[in-house]
Amino acid sequence: MTAPYVLVHGSCMCGKAWAEVAARLRTEHGLEVHTPTQAGHGPEVPTRQVTHAQVVQSIVDYVEAHDVTDFVLVGHSFGGTVIQKVAEAIPERIRRLVFWNAFVLLDGECLHDNVPEHMRAMLRGEAAATEDGAIVLPFPIYRDVFINDADLALAQATYEALYPEYVALFDERLDLKAFYALDIPKSYLYSWDDAALPHGEETGWYPRFGNRLGLIRFVSMPGGHMALLTAPELLADKIVEAGRD
Amino acid sequence: MTAPYVLVHGSCMCGKAWAEVAARLRTEHGLEVHTPTQAGHGPEVPTRQVTHAQVVQSIVDYVEAHDVTDFVLVGHSFGGTVIQKVAEAIPERIRRLVFWNAFVLLDGECLHDNVPEHMRAMLRGEAAATEDGAIVLPFPIYRDVFINDADLALAQATYEALYPEYVALFDERLDLKAFYALDIPKSYLYSWDDAALPHGEETGWYPRFGNRLGLIRFVSMPGGHMALLTAPELLADKIVEAGRD
Amino acid sequence: MTAPYVLVHGSCMCGKAWAEVAARLRTEHGLEVHTPTQAGHGPEVPTRQVTHAQVVQSIVDYVEAHDVTDFVLVGHSFGGTVIQKVAEAIPERIRRLVFWNAFVLLDGECLHDNVPEHMRAMLRGEAAATEDGAIVLPFPIYRDVFINDADLALAQATYEALYPEYVALFDERLDLKAFYALDIPKSYLYSWDDAALPHGEETGWYPRFGNRLGLIRFVSMPGGHMALLTAPELLADKIVEAGRD
Repeated sequence: MTAPYVLVHGSCMCGKAWAEVAARLRTEHGLEVHTPTQAGHGPEVPTRQVTHAQVVQSIVDYVEAHDVTDFVLVGHSFGGTVIQKVAEAIPERIRRLVFWNAFVLLDGECLHDNVPEHMRAMLRGEAAATEDGAIVLPFPIYRDVFINDADLALAQATYEALYPEYVALFDERLDLKAFYALDIPKSYLYSWDDAALPHGEETGWYPRFGNRLGLIRFVSMPGGHMALLTAPELLADKIVEAGRD
Repeated sequence: MTAPYVLVHGSCMCGKAWAEVAARLRTEHGLEVHTPTQAGHGPEVPTRQVTHAQVVQSIVDYVEAHDVTDFVLVGHSFGGTVIQKVAEAIPERIRRLVFWNAFVLLDGECLHDNVPEHMRAMLRGEAAATEDGAIVLPFPIYRDVFINDADLALAQATYEALYPEYVALFDERLDLKAFYALDIPKSYLYSWDDAALPHGEETGWYPRFGNRLGLIRFVSMPGGHMALLTAPELLADKIVEAGRD
Repeated sequence: MTAPYVLVHGSCMCGKAWAEVAARLRTEHGLEVHTPTQAGHGPEVPTRQVTHAQVVQSIVDYVEAHDVTDFVLVGHSFGGTVIQKVAEAIPERIRRLVFWNAFVLLDGECLHDNVPEHMRAMLRGEAAATEDGAIVLPFPIYRDVFINDADLALAQATYEALYPEYVALFDERLDLKAFYALDIPKSYLYSWDDAALPHGEETGWYPRFGNRLGLIRFVSMPGGHMALLTAPELLADKIVEAGRD
C-alpha cells in the first residue's frame, strides 16, 4: 500500500500544470494522485484577489471532499507556503511533506521577505500597473530564469498557459508557530538548475529553505524551476524518491 | 600496472560494507582491493572501546601484514580521520589519498568539532545511555539523512547490518602536524546528495574539507552518504577516477 | 534560422582546442561555428607579449573579416574577459553572450583580482623565471586541478598541446563601464566539477561570476575546466542550451 499524493502548484499555475507528472506517477508508479487548483488560480475564477487563508482553505476543502488520508503533500514554489499552512490545518492526514524548490517561510515571514529586493520591486511594480494587482512575469524573465532548460517553443507554449498571480499574496505574513511544532516527516527536493531565486546560501532555494525544516530527507535532480513541464518524468521519479517511506 | 586500493570504512561499518564496490573494482577495473576492518569494529569484537590510535594501528598492521605497497588509500566518513593518521604512519607506501565524503581534521581537532551542536548532543546523549558508550544512529535519522537515496527495504536491511560505534572516538583530538607536511597527492570525492553533514560552506563535507587539503583533484557524483550500498558501481567508477594517476 | 556561434578560447589554448566541440555543433546541431585564435596565442606567433586590447581586437577583426552577424559569442575561462570587451566593441553584432566557466570582471578589475593569492603568486613566480613572461601551468596542477576528469593519457596529450600564456595579461585592469550598460542577453554555463577556481561562493566560478551579469540564463553540466577536451559532445549540447533563443 503506497500513500496517495497531493501536488500543490506554484504561482501563475493551476492543477493542470502537473498533468505530465501526475500521469507518470499513476502509470509508472501506480499511485493515486490529486492536483487541486488553489482558490483564485487557474481559468475562469471570479477574482484573483484571494487571501493566503482562502488559498489554503481551498486545498483543505479539496482534501476533505475527496477524503484523502495518509497522503504525501507536495508543494512547489509559492505552494511551499501553502502546504505549510495546510499541514497546520490537517496534520493527521499527512504522511510526509515534500517541498520541491518551494518557499519555506519562518514564523511571521511573508514570501517577499525571501526574494531579492530587485525581484520584489519588479513584482510590485508590475502589479501596481494592473487593475486587480495580478500579473504574469515578463516573458524574458520567464524564459531565461524560470524555464531556462526549455527550448523557445516550449517556453512560449507554457508561457501562454500561465495565469495572472495576485502579488499581494507575497506580502501576507504567516503565523507558522504551529507548523514548526509539527513532527510530520519532511523532504526537500531540489532542482539544482533553478535560479529563480539566485544561487547562493543566503539567497537560493537550497540549502536555505531545507535548513529551516530540521531533520529532512534531501533529494536532488538537474532541471530548472519549471521541471514539471521540462522534465516531468524525472521529476515524478524524484517526487517518489522524496515522498516514499 | 595499476596501484592496489585499500578502502577504509566509516562508523558503524566494517570492511564488508565495501563488498559491492570492491567487486566492481576487481571485475570491471581489474584492481587489487583490500577492505580491512578497523579495530573495535565489525562483528565479534572483544570491545568497542578502542582508541583512535588503535583503529589506525589496525589498518597499518593490515597493510604491513599483506605487504601492500604503492597503493591508493581511500577513506569514507570517519575513515577520513583514520587515513590521515595512516598516511602519517606509512607515507612511503601510499600513492594517493582519496577522501570520499570523509572528515579531514585540522591539527588538534576532533571529529566532533566538525559536526553541528545538535548532532554532537544527540550522539553523546545516545552513547551516555548505553553501557559501553557505543551506539547505532536512530533509524529515522539513518533512513532520511544517511541513506536518503535508498528505498525503505534497502534502508532497513542495511540498518540491520550496522554495528555500534564507540562515540568517544569522535572526541579524540588528533595531532596532525605530520599529515599537513606530507606531499602525497590527494583527491576529494564528493557525493553531493549527502546531507549527513548539513549542506553549506561552513557545515558540509565539501568544499570545507576539500579546502583543507591544498592541491586536490576533485571528483563528484550523485548519491548520499551510503552510496557504497545504494550506488556501488558508480561509486567504484568514481573511486577510480579519483584514485588513478 | 539559427545564429552562428563564435567560440573564444582560454589561456594557453588556441582556436583548435574547440575542434571537437565545433564538430558536434556543426554536424549534430547544424550550426555555423567560428573558433578564432587570439593574438599572441597558438603556434608560431611573433610574440606572446600582447596586450588585452590586442587580444580583443584580434577577435573583432576576425568577426568583421568574416562578416559574422547576429551571433552567439561564447567565452571560456580567460576568454570571458575577452568577450566582455568584444561585446563593448561590436554589440550590434551579438545576439547573446555565453560565459562558460569564464571570468566576468567588474569594472576596473584585472583577472588576478579574482584568483586566490597562492595561485596569483605561483603564476607570477613561474612567469618571472621565463624570458618573455609566458608560461604553461606545471603539469601536476594541470592534471589534478584543470583536467581532473581525464585519464592520465588524455591529460598528458592535451598538456603537450598547450602554449605559453603571457601572464601580464592577468594584471591588466579593464574599463568595463560600457559592458555593464549593454543589454545583450547573457547565459552562464557552469561545469560544476571545475575547481580551477576553488569551489565556494566567494572564490569559485559560480555563482560569483553569474551574479555579476544581472539577469542570466543558467545552464549546468558535470565536467571540469577542460570539458572541451574531456566531454566535448556534452559541452556542445550545453552550449546550444545556453546560447539558443
